[in-house]
Amino acid sequence: MPKIDLYRSNFIAYLESKDQIKEPLNLYGPISYILHLGGKRLRPVLTLMATDIFGADYKKAMDAALAIEVFHNFSLVHDDIMDGAPLRRGKQTVHEKWDVNTGILSGDAMLIYSYQLLESYPDAMFKKLMHLFSKTALEVCEGQQYDVDFENRDDVSIPEYLLMIQYKTAVLVGAAMKMGAIIAEQPKPVQDVIYDFGLYLGIAFQLQDDYLDAFGNPKNFGKQVGGDIMVNKKTFMYLKALELGNATQIRELEHLFSIKPREAADKISTVKALYIETGAVAHTLKEIEFYTQKAFAILEQLPIDQSKKELLRQFGTSLMKREV
Amino acid sequence: MPKIDLYRSNFIAYLESKDQIKEPLNLYGPISYILHLGGKRLRPVLTLMATDIFGADYKKAMDAALAIEVFHNFSLVHDDIMDGAPLRRGKQTVHEKWDVNTGILSGDAMLIYSYQLLESYPDAMFKKLMHLFSKTALEVCEGQQYDVDFENRDDVSIPEYLLMIQYKTAVLVGAAMKMGAIIAEQPKPVQDVIYDFGLYLGIAFQLQDDYLDAFGNPKNFGKQVGGDIMVNKKTFMYLKALELGNATQIRELEHLFSIKPREAADKISTVKALYIETGAVAHTLKEIEFYTQKAFAILEQLPIDQSKKELLRQFGTSLMKREV
Repeated sequence: MPKIDLYRSNFIAYLESKDQIKEPLNLYGPISYILHLGGKRLRPVLTLMATDIFGADYKKAMDAALAIEVFHNFSLVHDDIMDGAPLRRGKQTVHEKWDVNTGILSGDAMLIYSYQLLESYPDAMFKKLMHLFSKTALEVCEGQQYDVDFENRDDVSIPEYLLMIQYKTAVLVGAAMKMGAIIAEQPKPVQDVIYDFGLYLGIAFQLQDDYLDAFGNPKNFGKQVGGDIMVNKKTFMYLKALELGNATQIRELEHLFSIKPREAADKISTVKALYIETGAVAHTLKEIEFYTQKAFAILEQLPIDQSKKELLRQFGTSLMKREV
Repeated sequence: MPKIDLYRSNFIAYLESKDQIKEPLNLYGPISYILHLGGKRLRPVLTLMATDIFGADYKKAMDAALAIEVFHNFSLVHDDIMDGAPLRRGKQTVHEKWDVNTGILSGDAMLIYSYQLLESYPDAMFKKLMHLFSKTALEVCEGQQYDVDFENRDDVSIPEYLLMIQYKTAVLVGAAMKMGAIIAEQPKPVQDVIYDFGLYLGIAFQLQDDYLDAFGNPKNFGKQVGGDIMVNKKTFMYLKALELGNATQIRELEHLFSIKPREAADKISTVKALYIETGAVAHTLKEIEFYTQKAFAILEQLPIDQSKKELLRQFGTSLMKREV
């Protein structure tokens, strides 16, 4: 998709142009480091795309797109501390390369910097962007808190899990697109439709992430396949398998999620077999399709050309195929 | 000072009225906890006072005052993690009562909440408040980073130290007052004067904190006297003693700041004697007076009644006596 590549390359050029390592180096160095680890830049691309689709110059949305990307990276830096994760995109996490205190403080500075980036917009637009941004940021924190809380609970329901990924992941995708609509000065109902499109797509994306973690092609997925199973992460598929499984299957699954064998290959393949046998895999794929279609259906409400709706659908489809 | 007490009691009532513990409890519980640990509420009181002095209804400034107080408490929660501090105002710190992850995440949520509180102001005023708030918040992070960096350096100069306390402490005092001027719709030069008043007072306050930590009356000071000396904290007085001392005094001081004896009483009294003998104490007291007078002098530029200037001077004086 050449348009997507254009948004992305322009965004990366803008990110580079804004990069300046200032004193104190131990504060700004880690920020520059994490922002240059790469990644697909999906969220900022969505902001630029939405702005373009609603008829405004997508370059006007650069600061908002960068704010979204900086915020996303702030959340990664703090989440990686909380998860004790040593690697991010194959490179050392900030708290590993420096230390936990540096991770906390440079994360804080990134959060503030993301707010600062929005100051380039006119007063009334700024207020609208800020309102959305703060609301979304707080929801992302709530989602992360639910994720942490769920680790210590064994009675997490499917609706609770869906709400957690909605807050932790999907609201930021929705907000990224809605910001584009705000910058293109679209009326509120249009802003809300594109937000919901992003939200549903974000939920589908995260469910698919759960699926690919177990059943993805190691070449395309970019993370260690089976990683969630290794660390006993209660994903959608796990919860679904407990819901659908018979007593024996549930007992086996709960046992496997209580141990961490050094050689994980056997455990991973047994869990995957259980995910298939219980019907959890089929159900998860159906759920991904459900949210994707929900996103596509809502597009019909948008007062834009069919060709532009098609572009959004194409993007959604290639996102689900992990081609973008 | 009855007016100050009025600001404070009204502020606390407002804080209480805004307090609502929501789900997830592990995110919002710690926020409520830290905001209710008490403290003198100096910064929000200054916002209300500035608003009042410039002729606007100080109640209009409640949300800005609360934003300042929430931000200040966010910085305490994260700083306490970085310092490994078990106690804050005599009570358990958030990361002690819960855990480090909770401290990180609820701190993040407080930072976002502080931004959200400013949304109640009209568009143009909101933008001005936000600009000041983000700039100040980033400087506070820089100040904290310098403070962390200085721990591992033995060549910190006095100007570097002064810049560190300016960023870490004084800019927030300046911003608290400037917010009042913005809400009272004062012209930019007036905003800048009251900012500088707060900034100089903030520097004087922090230098006095350094002084009181060693020579304060345990009854009034509220912290453990000698605490900085016990943990080998390089304060203004320490740096000044190294600058003014002779070779023997410097050697002794550097030795004492390389050890942490279990019984600290002897070390504390020897260091205090060295602070006096080198002239560091006299110099520190002169420096506190210098910044206090600098703050008072700048007040002359304000286009307000002498009685109101007198109120600000009285507040400054009682602040230095730690009566407020």
